[in-house]
Amino acid sequence: MGEVKDIEPEDSQMTRSEFPFGCDARCIHERNISPSDTTAATPRPHGSIYMGNFCAPKLDCIRMAIIGLGARGQAHAQCLSQLPGCKVVALCDERDQAVHHTAKTLVEKGSPAPSLYSGSESSYLEMLEKERPDAVFINTPWELHARMAIDSMQSGAHAFVEVPLALTLDDLWAVVGTAERTQRHCMMLEEVTYGRNELMFLHMVRLGLIGDLLHGEAAYIHDLRERTMGGTPGDISWRAFHYADRNGNLYPTHGLAPVAQYMNIARGEDTFDRIVSLSSPSLGHRSFVEKTLHSQNKWNRTDFLCGDINTSIIQTKLGRTILVQWDESSPRPYDRKNLIQGTEGTLADFPLRVIGNFASSAKTSSTPDTADAETHAWYTGPAALEDLRSRFEHPLYRRLAEPIKLLTPRAAMDYLMLYRIVECLHQGLPTDQNVYEAALWSAVGPLSEKSVHEGGAPQLFPDFTRGDWKHTDPSFE
Amino acid sequence: MGEVKDIEPEDSQMTRSEFPFGCDARCIHERNISPSDTTAATPRPHGSIYMGNFCAPKLDCIRMAIIGLGARGQAHAQCLSQLPGCKVVALCDERDQAVHHTAKTLVEKGSPAPSLYSGSESSYLEMLEKERPDAVFINTPWELHARMAIDSMQSGAHAFVEVPLALTLDDLWAVVGTAERTQRHCMMLEEVTYGRNELMFLHMVRLGLIGDLLHGEAAYIHDLRERTMGGTPGDISWRAFHYADRNGNLYPTHGLAPVAQYMNIARGEDTFDRIVSLSSPSLGHRSFVEKTLHSQNKWNRTDFLCGDINTSIIQTKLGRTILVQWDESSPRPYDRKNLIQGTEGTLADFPLRVIGNFASSAKTSSTPDTADAETHAWYTGPAALEDLRSRFEHPLYRRLAEPIKLLTPRAAMDYLMLYRIVECLHQGLPTDQNVYEAALWSAVGPLSEKSVHEGGAPQLFPDFTRGDWKHTDPSFE
Repeated sequence: MGEVKDIEPEDSQMTRSEFPFGCDARCIHERNISPSDTTAATPRPHGSIYMGNFCAPKLDCIRMAIIGLGARGQAHAQCLSQLPGCKVVALCDERDQAVHHTAKTLVEKGSPAPSLYSGSESSYLEMLEKERPDAVFINTPWELHARMAIDSMQSGAHAFVEVPLALTLDDLWAVVGTAERTQRHCMMLEEVTYGRNELMFLHMVRLGLIGDLLHGEAAYIHDLRERTMGGTPGDISWRAFHYADRNGNLYPTHGLAPVAQYMNIARGEDTFDRIVSLSSPSLGHRSFVEKTLHSQNKWNRTDFLCGDINTSIIQTKLGRTILVQWDESSPRPYDRKNLIQGTEGTLADFPLRVIGNFASSAKTSSTPDTADAETHAWYTGPAALEDLRSRFEHPLYRRLAEPIKLLTPRAAMDYLMLYRIVECLHQGLPTDQNVYEAALWSAVGPLSEKSVHEGGAPQLFPDFTRGDWKHTDPSFE
Repeated sequence: MGEVKDIEPEDSQMTRSEFPFGCDARCIHERNISPSDTTAATPRPHGSIYMGNFCAPKLDCIRMAIIGLGARGQAHAQCLSQLPGCKVVALCDERDQAVHHTAKTLVEKGSPAPSLYSGSESSYLEMLEKERPDAVFINTPWELHARMAIDSMQSGAHAFVEVPLALTLDDLWAVVGTAERTQRHCMMLEEVTYGRNELMFLHMVRLGLIGDLLHGEAAYIHDLRERTMGGTPGDISWRAFHYADRNGNLYPTHGLAPVAQYMNIARGEDTFDRIVSLSSPSLGHRSFVEKTLHSQNKWNRTDFLCGDINTSIIQTKLGRTILVQWDESSPRPYDRKNLIQGTEGTLADFPLRVIGNFASSAKTSSTPDTADAETHAWYTGPAALEDLRSRFEHPLYRRLAEPIKLLTPRAAMDYLMLYRIVECLHQGLPTDQNVYEAALWSAVGPLSEKSVHEGGAPQLFPDFTRGDWKHTDPSFE
């Protein structure tokens, strides 16, 4: 286990003055969180196609470019450069130092020297123009994702984008529209769907072990105060601008994406219908900067709009419910919940615990102090985990067990994700996540903001597929 | 621990044909779940008083009557008959057998023989008229609570009512209005606020150990299918009629009441503002009766309206959030969540686990597989529990440790509750729960029903105190 250990924001150590591409809070202030679902009612433009089961032409050798070389971008560059049939041809970051440093690590490991682009926010445009990569990996602050994905696809590349895909419904529609028009893959780099327990739960759900699905729970509870606001007074992450200006669930997908896959959301079975969302008071960031920063620091004069913990409920078309929580500013242990409940059982994580007939033969409980003898106890603990893995490990995890056996659980997630991206591009297969899932999962951000703003009023999800989710194949089949 | 072991519905073993007072689904169908908060805008009628800090005249010997002699009523009768300064003067139940059986157990333990009333739904009216008890304990099916509490207070008795207080806002207002007019206590028998961990958490919160409160979580997840729908084909609980006809959180208070007390809800600090609620599909009861009952049984021709798991979010006037869940029809382990989160720490249960500076000196984790080494781990396990108890046991629990030392955790909750009721009546003190808390906590039932019916639309809580919650003292102070 331990998948949880180091899921961190891309570029979390970046200082304000080092923002790639000169991004500032402007793009956040200009955001429009109102839903504009008129697009769903209009037909897909002529020449655009539905990308739900899209297969691109096979690529024997994939020419790749990386934009954004914080922690995430560096790691992706290093992993991709080692995979067969891949060539990292270009690196791009506003910071000269970042591109040179990453290039050096690649060359030291035997890769050919990539072309380097740096110096300004728009350096990536020059890179796209000159290099014409097959695939671009985008690992920049949230507010740059949509623009860079759109530009990448327009240059002819498949786009692979860190979470979330975009921050407004308009931008999500724009990304979807670009993918449909250019017929390029646009996949979000939601590595948690490749977590070992997540893949195992997916396999168990598909084996029918917990019956008909009723309810899921997802969270991203991770105390990031030290990383985003800590250090020297000027060392504040771009993430803090979002905390200051927005209120909702700003980072929903790590917890939500696996639960959505269990339910085959936007893939033939069900899709998101609506969301209600409420945020707690905003006290954590304020209290933290008061303790750590000089009283005259501008962050000590900033009002943080974002509630410390956001709690939302999604309802699907089939009426299923999904609890979604987000908290990056409270002293709580890391938690993604990862709970899926069916009529015949429930699977949950943090810590791993399950219940159902498949677990009854070896029922144990690590919580005897609270177990209800009259009803049931969780099947949990190290022996239960081993037993479940021996019976229900996902085929993908079994297939790739050898190359990941020395990796941390977190690095293994990333390896599986990147391996599968490369495999799908080589073989001309649909990617494991499509652009509609990326848009739908990311839409929780702006829709939760609007619901919070309206006192919890339900917000309808746009149907980015225009009804085509009904004939889209499940992932990992 | 083990408080959870046997919190069961009152009279859960009662068969349909044995309903006390001939109750049937009629009272449910006639329910009006629309909020009618016009009452809050009208002044309290002349001659009525605010009951928030109410002290009744001291009673040296309390003459008590018990209505409803299922499992809960029998247990209360036995406990109360053994407390000093108490006399159980009357027992009432539609079923002759129930009153005779309970009377026998009291007499065998040395109590004087109580008067017995049985035979019809209205037997309790005759009892109130003839006996004029000081206090009435009402342990009947949900739909009878409000009517019996009102009649009891009108007869001059203090009313102590099993949860929930009533099923509609109109009935909740009627109970509140009766208490204010008659100047009788009306306390809900929410024994979970007397749980050992709940009292300890309350004490810790009041010591300021977790800072400013942000968020709470409450649940009643208890698989009652076997109890309510199991057994012989005709052996269906009155609870099933509610499952069939209503959809929302029908039984919110066991989880919610302690969290509300941590926040001093309706007691000087904060109160409930609004609720949003969504229910999952309804599959559990249907599936259970298909397996257990004859295909021609009427319950196999019943559509169950109630979603298997309801998830709601309450927001308070101060902006705090409370997650509230309810599920009685899924194969899940018992859970009340009992989580309270502040800026400096979090306390949670099922199993007990806490985090905060008060726990750092002896930090351990029972979940090393998922602990985030970079952030925090829960302080949990038997040694942590003992350590916390040694430092933070609630004074009430310490004071009464001796009489409860041989009781099960569940019986200890009831004992503390009944002991405190008797103590308050003897000494002329306010009860630990007042009629406004009973109404506010119970209002989650009809308000969640309305929110579910309206696709999750926010519903405002009535202010049963008409603004007087602002100058009401906290409980247990």
